[in-house]
Amino acid sequence: MNFASDNTAGVAPEIMQALLKDAVAGSQSAYGADDVTARLEARLSEVFETNLRVFPVATGTAANSIALATITPPWGSVLCHEFSHIMNDECGAPEFFSGGARLHGMQSEDAKITPDMLLHTLERAGGHGIHAVKPASLSLTNATELGTSYTPTEVKALTDIAHAHGLKCHMDGTRFANVVAHQGCSPADMSWRAGIDILCLGATKNGAYAAEVIVVFDTDLANEVEIRRKRGGHLFSKMRFISTQLEAWLKDDLWMNLAKHSNQMASYLADGLNKIDDVKILHSIGANMMFARMKRSKHNAAQLGGAYYYLEPAWQKEDGNSEYVECRFVCSFETTKDEIDHFLEVLKIDK
Amino acid sequence: MNFASDNTAGVAPEIMQALLKDAVAGSQSAYGADDVTARLEARLSEVFETNLRVFPVATGTAANSIALATITPPWGSVLCHEFSHIMNDECGAPEFFSGGARLHGMQSEDAKITPDMLLHTLERAGGHGIHAVKPASLSLTNATELGTSYTPTEVKALTDIAHAHGLKCHMDGTRFANVVAHQGCSPADMSWRAGIDILCLGATKNGAYAAEVIVVFDTDLANEVEIRRKRGGHLFSKMRFISTQLEAWLKDDLWMNLAKHSNQMASYLADGLNKIDDVKILHSIGANMMFARMKRSKHNAAQLGGAYYYLEPAWQKEDGNSEYVECRFVCSFETTKDEIDHFLEVLKIDK
Amino acid sequence: MNFASDNTAGVAPEIMQALLKDAVAGSQSAYGADDVTARLEARLSEVFETNLRVFPVATGTAANSIALATITPPWGSVLCHEFSHIMNDECGAPEFFSGGARLHGMQSEDAKITPDMLLHTLERAGGHGIHAVKPASLSLTNATELGTSYTPTEVKALTDIAHAHGLKCHMDGTRFANVVAHQGCSPADMSWRAGIDILCLGATKNGAYAAEVIVVFDTDLANEVEIRRKRGGHLFSKMRFISTQLEAWLKDDLWMNLAKHSNQMASYLADGLNKIDDVKILHSIGANMMFARMKRSKHNAAQLGGAYYYLEPAWQKEDGNSEYVECRFVCSFETTKDEIDHFLEVLKIDK
Amino acid sequence: MNFASDNTAGVAPEIMQALLKDAVAGSQSAYGADDVTARLEARLSEVFETNLRVFPVATGTAANSIALATITPPWGSVLCHEFSHIMNDECGAPEFFSGGARLHGMQSEDAKITPDMLLHTLERAGGHGIHAVKPASLSLTNATELGTSYTPTEVKALTDIAHAHGLKCHMDGTRFANVVAHQGCSPADMSWRAGIDILCLGATKNGAYAAEVIVVFDTDLANEVEIRRKRGGHLFSKMRFISTQLEAWLKDDLWMNLAKHSNQMASYLADGLNKIDDVKILHSIGANMMFARMKRSKHNAAQLGGAYYYLEPAWQKEDGNSEYVECRFVCSFETTKDEIDHFLEVLKIDK
Repeated sequence: MNFASDNTAGVAPEIMQALLKDAVAGSQSAYGADDVTARLEARLSEVFETNLRVFPVATGTAANSIALATITPPWGSVLCHEFSHIMNDECGAPEFFSGGARLHGMQSEDAKITPDMLLHTLERAGGHGIHAVKPASLSLTNATELGTSYTPTEVKALTDIAHAHGLKCHMDGTRFANVVAHQGCSPADMSWRAGIDILCLGATKNGAYAAEVIVVFDTDLANEVEIRRKRGGHLFSKMRFISTQLEAWLKDDLWMNLAKHSNQMASYLADGLNKIDDVKILHSIGANMMFARMKRSKHNAAQLGGAYYYLEPAWQKEDGNSEYVECRFVCSFETTKDEIDHFLEVLKIDK
Repeated sequence: MNFASDNTAGVAPEIMQALLKDAVAGSQSAYGADDVTARLEARLSEVFETNLRVFPVATGTAANSIALATITPPWGSVLCHEFSHIMNDECGAPEFFSGGARLHGMQSEDAKITPDMLLHTLERAGGHGIHAVKPASLSLTNATELGTSYTPTEVKALTDIAHAHGLKCHMDGTRFANVVAHQGCSPADMSWRAGIDILCLGATKNGAYAAEVIVVFDTDLANEVEIRRKRGGHLFSKMRFISTQLEAWLKDDLWMNLAKHSNQMASYLADGLNKIDDVKILHSIGANMMFARMKRSKHNAAQLGGAYYYLEPAWQKEDGNSEYVECRFVCSFETTKDEIDHFLEVLKIDK
Repeated sequence: MNFASDNTAGVAPEIMQALLKDAVAGSQSAYGADDVTARLEARLSEVFETNLRVFPVATGTAANSIALATITPPWGSVLCHEFSHIMNDECGAPEFFSGGARLHGMQSEDAKITPDMLLHTLERAGGHGIHAVKPASLSLTNATELGTSYTPTEVKALTDIAHAHGLKCHMDGTRFANVVAHQGCSPADMSWRAGIDILCLGATKNGAYAAEVIVVFDTDLANEVEIRRKRGGHLFSKMRFISTQLEAWLKDDLWMNLAKHSNQMASYLADGLNKIDDVKILHSIGANMMFARMKRSKHNAAQLGGAYYYLEPAWQKEDGNSEYVECRFVCSFETTKDEIDHFLEVLKIDK
Repeated sequence: MNFASDNTAGVAPEIMQALLKDAVAGSQSAYGADDVTARLEARLSEVFETNLRVFPVATGTAANSIALATITPPWGSVLCHEFSHIMNDECGAPEFFSGGARLHGMQSEDAKITPDMLLHTLERAGGHGIHAVKPASLSLTNATELGTSYTPTEVKALTDIAHAHGLKCHMDGTRFANVVAHQGCSPADMSWRAGIDILCLGATKNGAYAAEVIVVFDTDLANEVEIRRKRGGHLFSKMRFISTQLEAWLKDDLWMNLAKHSNQMASYLADGLNKIDDVKILHSIGANMMFARMKRSKHNAAQLGGAYYYLEPAWQKEDGNSEYVECRFVCSFETTKDEIDHFLEVLKIDK
């Protein structure tokens, strides 16, 4: 009963087998000049139906920070949501990689940015001229940190505004596969066709060991991404190790199949939670993750019963007196119906 | 009729005379090893009734950024007000000097931080452990950017909370003289006795040419301040040039006399504005600056009449349809009653 | 016949098996709060016979940069050798992570720093006071980039001088296992007992996929290392992936056995090269790597015969007219006698 | 008898008078939007016979660092001389402003870079591809830190090579007036006509209080220089203060007259020193500064006699046993023949 995060799961067997095979494949050129990495770029070009450049890295924080630093000068700001991972969970890595750019967080209940919010922010940003930090990029997380998601149309509406104001557009796609599976669109529709210039595509939370890839649609940015990756210590000598995971992940629709499974499990869990008194799903579910408000007594029972998940925001832990708590539940490619059924039983016992 | 800022004024005659005298005083050791700078430190120690170290610089942005970088690691955050100068008017200089620390802006209508706001922010900051940016310092602006001011007691209440959470405390004192004059307290009461560890004391807006001084009460910080000043290009070879201004400014209570004059002019202007229909002073006045809401037609008349001041926020300029605008008026040591009377006349004409 | 680098090799079977076992071991806490990582710290404490803290990362550049940034302020310098990896092969990563510290390279033919060189450098560094960059750390590479190595006594002589001048001491141990095996000393003798405060211990070039570990002997540094790792994007969610490799690498003396094998192959290759006319080994061999000067015609023959290795310095490639070239040969845990014999045959054919 | 530096001198009367006049000139727009600064740009455009942009600052370190950061990315290197001010006297400010670029110092006895040295360095810089720091800019100091100077032809030969390799060219002109006066060329000949893209023109050492100006010939760079100046805390609110000094300095050939005087004094001092036994001028004199090797006993006598100057390198102070010392003598616009005669007398007494 581990719903803490999709990064607590293991590795998909297909990916492990590919790694095993690669490990004994003999010497290969280091630092990405290997055959696997070359094939990966070609494969992603097919998957996304366009010319692109790809830069595999091993963590989502690395991917986001390298991408954002490439499109944001030190004196620029990244317009993002106040709930975004780059704002709350990367220890200032975007500021570090960019040389001190600022994250400007916009506020809304469901973690989504709207065109009105974006326009309002842009209009109010310019008044102090040389004295002000200048908006330089827009960062969208899809699926969002609250489990909601943007449609391609919603993304396009935002990137149109951003581009019209001279900003470049980044997508934190740590759960990109889940959102594409959920929306039933193509990877291209959700990325470059919707105006995304640079995408951080995550596999770690969806079956890989440690594999993310910076997908550069605006290929003029590629050279700087490559240098920043090296300078950040994120160029692996045995690069093929990451590339092999990604190749296996993309093969025979594995990535989509894994994502569909976790989405379905999330849907199944949500259905179950909705039927329980004193539990309320908080936002529309756009991927493999949800937030629920429930009675603290139920939460306590779940903890005793061995369920593992986070209270979000985290400070609710210390604030023991509130009657209700807000909980985050994430399903992974390993989550099973049995696990969910068992969890629902535990919750039902408390009344 | 220039109420745009106290930095549009000239130089007080006493300061100019001191500069003139110094200019012909013969060769002096460079980089602060001169007699004037030594005397300045002794003088400020007297003025603030404590042992301290001082580092003259020439701009407020330099002073704030060097001070904040000294008390905030790259992965730390500066808790401040969303209206603060460091947030809106320094082009990310604090981020630059600190190597990417984050400014965390708190919100209130009068630009003042309250103990509740600070506690709330601190409690919510810690939940993500290693993944989160860590609050490292508190920055108070006194007088604030809206012309309000903190009492020594209010400052102490905030620094007590900050210190209890391991933060260091900075004061942006670009108008420190004005607030000390307004509150009728001692410089010590408003700074180290109220828990301030490092003060940026500004003279540029109060009669000097270009002279600010970083006053370090927590003298363990002094060595790093000195290095950061040099590395930032803010160590003047002919340092005595800045020190001479500051020495003259502190002599015979000149700084207090200049500040009292601008405060009085602000008070006189406020009284006049209050008597005019369709003009409303927006916040309590704590120094030499005020904000007023007035009919756009009056503002237009004032502009035509040759008055010079800013609309704040600045985007009101473009938004020409609103019936009312918010205006900022700042009085300087050079502001005269005649100037104010003339301005009030212009406003009264429009009905 | 691939002697290009030990990072072109694959993964040792024992390490691959451990990864395979871990991949199906079920969910684990993310970000290093897992069982494997806890066991790894205990194991390294045993191996190094002291209390220590460990921080696994995936690249040597990450390890070196995080470690150096922790012991070098932005205004400090790292005293190192001009041939060091941090100087020539990390694209300025140490400067990036440290916020602009300077690498000060010392010069010698065999890539080793001597006490005289170090003392000379330290004496000449201080003359400009506040205006000068300040030596803050000493970085030794062992084995060096030329394949030579320091004895524990040599290391101690250097760290004694460094510590006496207030510097912290770092060792780039990308080939630490090889040098320990070569010198026949204990890991403790070559590190903390010889005055090393922080060691970057590399496994990637010695059988792992991607696994390095920052070993912190001066445990006061641990907290900052941990933050810098996260902020640099080098904290893996599935951390156990790196830790598992390292645990397997350290088990049953695997790391030493792999290192001994590559050292022996290097020795065997050197013996063979020495017997060939117009080939000369350039430095004493202290690990699994060597440099040889040989006739360009032999080099050309080797290339045609399919041998793969680097000319160092690299600019010799373009400079086609010189009669001799300098070549680097590295042996890995996968290098075989047959491979070497074949290579020697190719070289002998050309006369 | 102060030959320590031209920055220990006072302020030229003409400049002081201009400041005095400006101080009472009434309110002016802040942050460089004033009349004086506008006139300054026009005047410098005349002086340099070309279209250009100018950005006044108050210290040479600020000017150099902002200029170099604008033409050097964080992963680039600045090719310069190992004796340069940016290398030895700015506490790593260029690294700070650029976000961690590297200074690559070339070596020669007279502090001048030759085309051969530059070519050699460029050829050897590229071998490690993505792993290497990339040469991005060339920085020439004219006059050099040893008092020698480049002719326009020599500068052109270097900038031609640099431009052919994609580098931008910077000149540290802290003593630009002195070298132009010495060489008898035009300011244009020594700067943009010789291939300089960005010039840091210093007035502080030649009669001003604190005034330097970044002269941008490659005007595409201007916007970034402006932002970096603000973000570095080097945009003065009362900017006209610096501009006024510069305007007075350029008026009626004052800058050239002051420079000629200090050059003549240097020449007179050199003639005198050359006639004294056991004193030897070390380099050809290209401006207002020289280095001499003299018996330590003479140096001791000079110290006792009240002469003030530096030993360079500075570590000679501690190394008391050498028979000879190397001394630096700088003449300023205030240096008099009497002062020099007196000094020469003191030196002659010791035998």
